[in-house]
Amino acid sequence: MTSLDRVITALAKLPGLGRKSAARLAYYLLRADLSYVRALAADLAALRECIRPCAICGAYTEAERCDICVDPSRDPDRVCVVEQPQDIATIEATGEFRGRYHVLMGVLSPLEGIGPEDLRIDRLLRRVREEGIREVIVATNATVEGEATALLLAKQLKDLEVAVSQLAHGLPVGSDLEYSDRLTVSRALRGRVRLD
Amino acid sequence: MTSLDRVITALAKLPGLGRKSAARLAYYLLRADLSYVRALAADLAALRECIRPCAICGAYTEAERCDICVDPSRDPDRVCVVEQPQDIATIEATGEFRGRYHVLMGVLSPLEGIGPEDLRIDRLLRRVREEGIREVIVATNATVEGEATALLLAKQLKDLEVAVSQLAHGLPVGSDLEYSDRLTVSRALRGRVRLD
Repeated sequence: MTSLDRVITALAKLPGLGRKSAARLAYYLLRADLSYVRALAADLAALRECIRPCAICGAYTEAERCDICVDPSRDPDRVCVVEQPQDIATIEATGEFRGRYHVLMGVLSPLEGIGPEDLRIDRLLRRVREEGIREVIVATNATVEGEATALLLAKQLKDLEVAVSQLAHGLPVGSDLEYSDRLTVSRALRGRVRLD
Repeated sequence: MTSLDRVITALAKLPGLGRKSAARLAYYLLRADLSYVRALAADLAALRECIRPCAICGAYTEAERCDICVDPSRDPDRVCVVEQPQDIATIEATGEFRGRYHVLMGVLSPLEGIGPEDLRIDRLLRRVREEGIREVIVATNATVEGEATALLLAKQLKDLEVAVSQLAHGLPVGSDLEYSDRLTVSRALRGRVRLD
């Protein structure tokens, strides 16, 4: 097996890449700028040495605590709970949320054998008690697993003095009612907002 | 810039990957098997040290000459000319060709400023003269650039004692006439094959 074959085989294991796309990338790398390929290899080698979960929220960071957790300008009263570290960037992109985050590092999934004890729920409960958090906004995905996780969180947070909310479900902005699926329209109806 | 940002930025430069796909891959690598990520980084670092063009045909190899060029069972009379090293795998997959290859390392493209002198044409002419090749099969892409390159090769090879052929153009196997484009049908008509 040549190093070309090894690179193709390794790239083909990445999500969303088949053998053909992996081969295309590998052949591209063979003709790409040498300093770029060297930097990519070095960055990949460094990735797992440098990046670790934030000791508080679980987001990826190079420090002990992530930038958001140590930022004194962020509202300490509100915590947004997400499934994965990458979800934080999606919420941040809206510019609508100035609180902090908590990463579950997964979602309830009986099929994959992921139960409540596999998620960072205990850490969330402890944070709510110790940090004096007043609102938990659950931003799990709008999937069956995400919904089940949101319900579980609501149940576990019930006895603590904290408001629990969830991202609204409804029609995506710019979508046609005609092409929306039944469940989405059903949730949009139930969550209707008064205009008067 | 964290090493995570650097990996995302570097991956986003790969063809076919945008910033979103690059981020998805980077986050996957953060949770993937550590030995896999280390091996991928090492393979990428080794790629450009180990792989070089075959001294004869230009295919990628780890040796001075590629496996096909040194294989005594391959027919030395026939050479298949391809644009890129990766095209060899496509021809090999058919199992129909037992000759050798010659890689042009590109294709005529006035728009990108690639002229005949940028392709490995001189090397091909020398091989035809020195190796006693009797047939050159031009397997450039069925694009405007590939066609122009095929015509140029035919012209340059005309005075040498060698047959020059080109891959047939026509309906792809399994395709509907109804959905075929006009140029393809036109080439299929002109290249029609007698059945009687």
